[in-house]
Order: sequence, then C-alpha cells, then structure tokens
Amino acid sequence: MSLVRCHIAVSLDGFAAGPDQSEEHPLGRGGERLHEWMFTSRTWHAQHGRDEGERDASDEVVEAVQNGIGAYVMGRNMFGWGRGAWDESWRGWWGDDPPFHTPVFVLTHHEREPVPMRGGTTFFFVTDGIEAALSKARYVAGDKDVTVAGGASTVRQFLAAGLLDELYLHIVPVLLGAGERLLEDVGEPSLEQIEVVPAPGVTHVKYRVLR
Amino acid sequence: MSLVRCHIAVSLDGFAAGPDQSEEHPLGRGGERLHEWMFTSRTWHAQHGRDEGERDASDEVVEAVQNGIGAYVMGRNMFGWGRGAWDESWRGWWGDDPPFHTPVFVLTHHEREPVPMRGGTTFFFVTDGIEAALSKARYVAGDKDVTVAGGASTVRQFLAAGLLDELYLHIVPVLLGAGERLLEDVGEPSLEQIEVVPAPGVTHVKYRVLR
Repeated sequence: MSLVRCHIAVSLDGFAAGPDQSEEHPLGRGGERLHEWMFTSRTWHAQHGRDEGERDASDEVVEAVQNGIGAYVMGRNMFGWGRGAWDESWRGWWGDDPPFHTPVFVLTHHEREPVPMRGGTTFFFVTDGIEAALSKARYVAGDKDVTVAGGASTVRQFLAAGLLDELYLHIVPVLLGAGERLLEDVGEPSLEQIEVVPAPGVTHVKYRVLR
Repeated sequence: MSLVRCHIAVSLDGFAAGPDQSEEHPLGRGGERLHEWMFTSRTWHAQHGRDEGERDASDEVVEAVQNGIGAYVMGRNMFGWGRGAWDESWRGWWGDDPPFHTPVFVLTHHEREPVPMRGGTTFFFVTDGIEAALSKARYVAGDKDVTVAGGASTVRQFLAAGLLDELYLHIVPVLLGAGERLLEDVGEPSLEQIEVVPAPGVTHVKYRVLR
C-alpha cells in the first residue's frame, strides 16, 4: 500500500517559513535558516551536480525521503511566487532539471497546460482541490509513495483532511518569532513517533499519522 | 561555572500546557498528555517510592536533569493554583516530601515566610522579580546548577532576559491545538543543539542558549 508522505523543516517555535514572504524572499525573513542543515550534506550537493559536502546523518534522511516517491503534490506558492493568471514563462524555481524526476501536481485556481522538464519531472496543474490532486498523484505513483512537498498551507490542508500517512519533521534550533505556522488548524490528528535521527544542527523526527 | 538550566515538556505544536487551565486541571485540557512518557519510567516511580516502571532512554534523561541541581526557581502558578494573598495551608502539589530536596524560590507578588518540608526542600517566596530570585538561587546552589522549573511563563521570562544557559525540551507527539505557548515573546536567543535522545513516545533535545 503506497503512502502519502510529507517532510518539511520547521523552526523550534513552529514556523515553516518566516514573516514577510516576498518574491525576493519566498521563505520569509530568516526562513532560509531552516534549510542550512541541508546545504552541508553530500546528497544535496550531488543533486546539484557537485562533488562536495559532508556525509552525515542528515544525508541518510535526505536520501530516505526521496526514495520510492512516484509523484509530488505542491501548493502554487511553492511552485512560484506569482498570483492570479499564469505567466507561462515561469517554470518553477528549480531550473531545467528539477529535483523531482516524477510528475508534480501543482494546486492552483488557474488552468495551465502541463510543463514537461528535463530529467523526468512534469508539472501538472490541478484546479479541483487537494483530493483530486492526490487521486491523480496516487494513480501515476502506482505502488510508490506520494510526497506532499509543501508549502505549509498545503501540508496543513492535507493534515486537516486526514490525507497524510507520515509527517517527517526536520526540527531546527532556530526561533523565527513569526511567520507561517505549520501545525495550526490541522484538526486533531493522532501522531505516533516512529523514528528519531539526531544530526548536526537538526533533529529529524518521523511521525505516523493515525486515522 | 554553574549553569541555569530548564527542562520542560512541549507539544509538537509548541504548547507547554493545554487550554482552560483551572484548579482541577492545572495543566489545562489535554496537558497531562505531555507527561505520559515520564509516568512509565522507573526513575519517576522510584521517586514516588514504588518499585515499578520500565527503564528506557527517558530514565537517563530524567536522572540527568535532576543531577547536580542546587536550587530551583518556579512561578507561583507552578507552586499552586491560588491567586492573591496566600492561603498558608497550601504547601505545593507535591505532598510532605517534594521531589526537589533543595531550596525552591517561588516567584510571587505576595510575601510569605519560608515553608520547610521534609527531605531537604524549603520553599522561599521572592517578591522582587526573576533576577533577585536567580541571584538567591545561585547563592545557595554554590557550584551546583539552578533549574528554572516552570511554568511556561516563567521560562519565557528567563529566556527573554537572557538568563538561561540550557533548555532541554521533551518534544511530545501530541497536538494540543491551543494553550500556553512556550517559545513566544522570548526575544531572539540563539540556540545550539547539543544533545538528542530518542525515547519511546518522546524526543529529548537539549539546546545551549548562546549569549
């Protein structure tokens, strides 16, 4: 049975992005500090075609969360900063060869033709809600898993709707003080802690979401 | 150099107590779920004179946080539910032999004579603020450490004032949805993750507070 998984970095005070998100600072003020632990990892550099970085416990986590994924779902704000009707020249933040290598279903209110990229990533645009997007993602993923890629608001919607099986948090020793909370208005899901991976500058904790 | 330490349980959504705290439910609705991991530990039962419970990774954490402590500071709401002038018959939640075994400095706006208990615990009442309480606690602790015992509002005050050296969080896989937030309005302390202890139903993470 394939799973619906999510992994996301969160500040110790519960924010998945800092305040004042903008086109220039899509993660908000201080938000990039949530991802610093990743930028030292060998796996992350390898994905960007570089032979550098240190192999540490976070590498195994980065590999594990990418392993066995057949499709992604993401919110429009994760795909790009634009609002309203599409600027068709925008093809995501990730360059010609995005790190997904599978279909990616982007939640939006505005229709758009699929955008095929190099390396197996195709962006599909879904205008009829999270359940429809998940249904398509599950179909193309087959017996592989589906990842809800973010951002925070999309993750909250999936949690609140009871559509998530696993939540893997990268808990970062940073206090942002304000921004976008990850675990607010998500109903009352029961969580079971199933894995803890201590790593430099971050604690990775995987939770099973019980139905 | 003795340290000012704090260890406290927190829900995954950042609350140290649930909503609707009352005399009957001092931890608020659902707040007792933050402490369930402790109630199975051998160390906790031993402190309450019982030979039961399982020895697991949490036992070592419970022992470590109690080790080398020369004094405690706590907020009035942790000492008791009462407000305003003292009801002198109230001597804390912990019975005749409280688990502190050192002086405990209780922050209050209302003067009261010290209350000696069995087993080495004496409650002192401090009316001139957290710095005065800490100064007294440091004095009696000598080269041992001082623990800021709670509740959340007292911990926040110590963090905001830059008076804490170590924050040891017991991160519990529970979403309370509302209640008293631990890490709100605490200024912008820098935290360094220095220890992670995975345990059944809880992740213990110790942070150094950098000045």
